Amino acid sequence: MQQLSNNRIFDGQQLVYQHNSDCCKSSMRFSIYLPDLSRQAPCPALFWLSGLTCTEQNFTVKAGAQRVASELGLIVIAPDTSPRGDIADDPDAYDLGKGAGFYVDATQPPWADNYQMHTYIAAELPALIQQHFSVDAERLGVFGHSMGGHGALTMHLRYPEVFKSVSAFAPIVAPARVPWGRKVLTAYLGKDEQQWYQYDACRLVRQNQTEAEILIDQGSADEFLMEQLQPELFTAACQAAGQPVQLRMQQGYDHSYYFITSFIEDHLRHHARNLNN
Amino acid sequence: MQQLSNNRIFDGQQLVYQHNSDCCKSSMRFSIYLPDLSRQAPCPALFWLSGLTCTEQNFTVKAGAQRVASELGLIVIAPDTSPRGDIADDPDAYDLGKGAGFYVDATQPPWADNYQMHTYIAAELPALIQQHFSVDAERLGVFGHSMGGHGALTMHLRYPEVFKSVSAFAPIVAPARVPWGRKVLTAYLGKDEQQWYQYDACRLVRQNQTEAEILIDQGSADEFLMEQLQPELFTAACQAAGQPVQLRMQQGYDHSYYFITSFIEDHLRHHARNLNN
Repeated sequence: MQQLSNNRIFDGQQLVYQHNSDCCKSSMRFSIYLPDLSRQAPCPALFWLSGLTCTEQNFTVKAGAQRVASELGLIVIAPDTSPRGDIADDPDAYDLGKGAGFYVDATQPPWADNYQMHTYIAAELPALIQQHFSVDAERLGVFGHSMGGHGALTMHLRYPEVFKSVSAFAPIVAPARVPWGRKVLTAYLGKDEQQWYQYDACRLVRQNQTEAEILIDQGSADEFLMEQLQPELFTAACQAAGQPVQLRMQQGYDHSYYFITSFIEDHLRHHARNLNN
Repeated sequence: MQQLSNNRIFDGQQLVYQHNSDCCKSSMRFSIYLPDLSRQAPCPALFWLSGLTCTEQNFTVKAGAQRVASELGLIVIAPDTSPRGDIADDPDAYDLGKGAGFYVDATQPPWADNYQMHTYIAAELPALIQQHFSVDAERLGVFGHSMGGHGALTMHLRYPEVFKSVSAFAPIVAPARVPWGRKVLTAYLGKDEQQWYQYDACRLVRQNQTEAEILIDQGSADEFLMEQLQPELFTAACQAAGQPVQLRMQQGYDHSYYFITSFIEDHLRHHARNLNN
């Protein structure tokens, strides 16, 4: 594992690492914020899953999470959104291939060789983080934006014993029903829609309810709200299944990091509360 | 004046505009954060001057100023660091030409036609802002980073009746003495060093003391500290001249926006206090 950068910020260190992923068979990057509090005792850790086109940099530079993470003693890890390097890609599409791993394990050629982001986030990366940093493995949370909001919801619903707290900004909640999801799930998993449902939060919550309240923020001026996001599909599914959820519509906010940074403090405090920090 | 973007953030609007500058004879961009409080009454405004290679985007996206600006009711304007377009440039140098206007009025060819950033910041941009936005013209401040810290100090020392409060992150305080400054001042102003002193904070403070305390933050791990910055030259000049100044050495912080965002709240509160907000 190679350290690419190390900057002091808000009484902590913002680091970026590169390593070879076993499951993705490629070089992968992630950023990690270590508050100084983590030098004294293991700290809870949150995994941030980014949206389409992002790398590990977007959240790290734009979200402004470090200030409150420092105060609360939270470690925050932001992985890249896909494997990189000399691998399969669709260079003309921003929503397939590199930058668009969609947090699934691809089964179809040419993607299956490297696009194993589900296993990477659910298993390989948490193990790597626990091996190298002062993390309290009993107190992990997951959150994310758009495609990464989809990733966070599905990770929590499938592995609530691993990711005990969850929140999302403008998540894709029903990938099996919306254009972004149907395109990439067809490419990565094939045409059998039954295979898609293990990665569809609206479907998963029918079987897998958890005790943690799910916090979702959604901007009312989000250009993707009506076609790609439709968070009311998820709150309806949660209500039908008895899953605690809170959807906050934020008036006038869009899909950008300007929206995320405006409410990141609430999300960090939500996770700290749920992880009994 | 053309609006290029408009995003909601922290109970306000983050906007980017483009306009034709009279003094620079080129198209120029700036960002402006308008807290909702400015809809009710004119608000104080701060001009942020960025460092080498920056555009109007860096501060806007990375500094995290909007949260506290919203709370305090401060308008924050971040202009580009040079004119742009089909003008003179040194494409091989990051520290001369585009992205490196140095907040001076160039007198030498080929720069003099467009590189008039001193007049742009001191006069043209404040007038434009006052014409279009709900700004209290009696309560303006200026701050900046590195090359922009130099710009902020010189603007305040020369026009304390315009820019009544001032602060800086890792400023170039003695451009007439350090390599960055000597290179660009020679190019923009010629070899007569007497011409440089009107843009050298250490020289200016000998004549022009002000009543406002100057706040400076400097990271101890800044790679440019010893050769290019040397803030102790300025504090010594201030002490000799009777100029109030506070230099805070921040242990372990470097020259990046990770440093700036860690202390931006202190600077915003410093300006609000000094502008009797």
